Amino acid sequence: MTAAGILSGLRVTEVSAFIAAPLAGMTLRQLGAEVLRIDPLLGNIDYRRWPVSGDGTSLYWAGLNKGKRSIALALDKPEGREIAASLITAPGPNNGILLTNLPGSGWMEHETLIKRRPDLITLRLTGGRDGRGEVDYTVNCASGFPLVTGRGGEPVNHVLPAWDVAAGLYLATGLLAAERSRRQDGKGQEVTLALSDVMLATVGNLGYLADVQVNGVVRQAMGNDLYGAFGRDFPTSDGRRIMIVAISNRQWRAIGKATGLAEKLAMIGPMMDVDLNDEGGRFHARHAIAAVLEPWFAARMLEEIRVAFEGSGILWGPYQDFGQLVAEDSRCSTDNPMFGMINQAGAGSILAPGTPLGFSEAGRVPPVPAPRLGADTDAVLAEVLGLSSAQIGKLHDAGVIAGAPGQ
Amino acid sequence: MTAAGILSGLRVTEVSAFIAAPLAGMTLRQLGAEVLRIDPLLGNIDYRRWPVSGDGTSLYWAGLNKGKRSIALALDKPEGREIAASLITAPGPNNGILLTNLPGSGWMEHETLIKRRPDLITLRLTGGRDGRGEVDYTVNCASGFPLVTGRGGEPVNHVLPAWDVAAGLYLATGLLAAERSRRQDGKGQEVTLALSDVMLATVGNLGYLADVQVNGVVRQAMGNDLYGAFGRDFPTSDGRRIMIVAISNRQWRAIGKATGLAEKLAMIGPMMDVDLNDEGGRFHARHAIAAVLEPWFAARMLEEIRVAFEGSGILWGPYQDFGQLVAEDSRCSTDNPMFGMINQAGAGSILAPGTPLGFSEAGRVPPVPAPRLGADTDAVLAEVLGLSSAQIGKLHDAGVIAGAPGQ
Repeated sequence: MTAAGILSGLRVTEVSAFIAAPLAGMTLRQLGAEVLRIDPLLGNIDYRRWPVSGDGTSLYWAGLNKGKRSIALALDKPEGREIAASLITAPGPNNGILLTNLPGSGWMEHETLIKRRPDLITLRLTGGRDGRGEVDYTVNCASGFPLVTGRGGEPVNHVLPAWDVAAGLYLATGLLAAERSRRQDGKGQEVTLALSDVMLATVGNLGYLADVQVNGVVRQAMGNDLYGAFGRDFPTSDGRRIMIVAISNRQWRAIGKATGLAEKLAMIGPMMDVDLNDEGGRFHARHAIAAVLEPWFAARMLEEIRVAFEGSGILWGPYQDFGQLVAEDSRCSTDNPMFGMINQAGAGSILAPGTPLGFSEAGRVPPVPAPRLGADTDAVLAEVLGLSSAQIGKLHDAGVIAGAPGQ
Repeated sequence: MTAAGILSGLRVTEVSAFIAAPLAGMTLRQLGAEVLRIDPLLGNIDYRRWPVSGDGTSLYWAGLNKGKRSIALALDKPEGREIAASLITAPGPNNGILLTNLPGSGWMEHETLIKRRPDLITLRLTGGRDGRGEVDYTVNCASGFPLVTGRGGEPVNHVLPAWDVAAGLYLATGLLAAERSRRQDGKGQEVTLALSDVMLATVGNLGYLADVQVNGVVRQAMGNDLYGAFGRDFPTSDGRRIMIVAISNRQWRAIGKATGLAEKLAMIGPMMDVDLNDEGGRFHARHAIAAVLEPWFAARMLEEIRVAFEGSGILWGPYQDFGQLVAEDSRCSTDNPMFGMINQAGAGSILAPGTPLGFSEAGRVPPVPAPRLGADTDAVLAEVLGLSSAQIGKLHDAGVIAGAPGQ
């Protein structure tokens, strides 16, 4: 079932760059909101970010801006900023929401914009709480995680921009919370989020800060071993590698059963003086457990392991590179209703995800391409601001607005 | 300013374990919602998860369940399930929202519960879309990221449970979207989310799938180097390490200026035949850039670097382990209004984060401790279901409900 989406009717105006704020806007777009992304005439700082296709189209930008409407304005001119402010503060109960991670040098401040629309909601992401510039990499190094990732000895950065992703989803949550509140009392407000606080809150929520404070323990690197239970990776006979995890006793017993090694694994308890019916006991005995399991995996190909584990209740999976993910994993194909094929300008026909959220009543919004820069400038200025063709033509001539090239 | 929070009045009933669903509930709690966490009499499978304090209190559980009300029920008995279903489907426009990642063997299915409350909203997190069991580790190995994390040659798992965190925040977003919709049309629905889809959507949103499809390129590991621009780590003279990043030209020039190495860095352009005023050019020349910068960092202590970079506009930060984060970083202290000291049963007085989101009008909900298991059973049964003390006493005697030990 394709549909308009559960947030159909809601409009968000976004002035953004990079990952977090664009992901927040796209998350809402994929739930049905209309998202107007305003950019400078030549695009924002993220418009050419790698990876790019042969003609220079940013696949990164395309991935994070699917389904938005693009408005290109001369934000360095008063006339361009005036149009942007008019779009941001356009009337209507479903409008008046600004999502941004850019400073906007005065004109885009909440205190300035509420003079035009007192019930405006502004979502503002900053790097540090004090306004200091921060990106995923600079909050990550401070988080403690790089020093426990890998085998230790040197810090290992995660490559997934996890803090940006979390920040984007916090923004989406905060936006809907503020909009809910405005529906109740008619009041807008500024919602702020610092990327560094997303990191700090998460480290705290996961118990790492408490572990230091309560136990005086600073977690150390332990490769791919899972902390506090049994889990790690094993190589297979065909040069692949799998991850296997047992947190519950049921999952633990499933490993013994499916591998036929239950009796040998049971010997580890008395041998290592641990209770293997306890996840902490299995963590203490993890090297002995791995020693028993390793030959079983080393003697089998990935496909044999898949067959042996089918329906066993074991938590496991194969490691895949990005190419194998696309080529081998049916979850990453149109077999999965989250995905669809889109025709992305500059990139061609590609598989693209919609929202991972499914709504039983509201239906699923199919994935759509990202706009070309400025593709919706004229239409949005006519629709939202009621400008005539003549007025729009004048703004083009004056270099205040731009459409997509070749439009 | 402390306050009730922007979601004050909303009630969510949670039947959950581990990270994602509990984080979703806590995220809403920290915005002011009331969250009733229902658990079996002895706690759910996550109740003793490591790290734990000296008396066995899970610091992990405490971190992810702050501020919730805990109700302990015999969910293996019809009477216990009846109470749970009554709480989940209690009347009122702000109630009737279930958040869960557990199967609940029939009684907790959306189709069953809507017989009691047709406008129920159920948020259900599964592992795979097909109901297959998955955890952060098993979706991560399939994501492609472990094979590009670290220096290559072997997969490196991230330690941050990034997919769980993202899933929790998608759930919070989906819940507010569904609740907004119910306010408009009175209809509830089931909202589903698979952890594997969170991973797949994210890999797609970030352009990794398109890079494979469009360019036939499978990203390779490159240590702590930033892809497509300049960024990497450097050791300092006092045994610390820093991360430094330049994405924009402004950030790039700031590095040359603050280190006094602008002239030497400018020599790299003609030497390597790249345009250093282009982020891709800087990526191509990253090893030469690093060779010029490395001695500068190696000759300086962290504190000297901090002074040199202060106010320079450079994006950088020190690596910190979890202990250094707590001991040295003022952002991780009550200097940061996101944090407060809480008295957590079994753990003592600890620093804990509230929500990273700030609301200019709604104010900030201060962090509060997690409940002891069952601490709110009696109060919630009286308040929400209107049970009398005599009825509650009978349920205790029958082993259907439990309070916190020593209550």
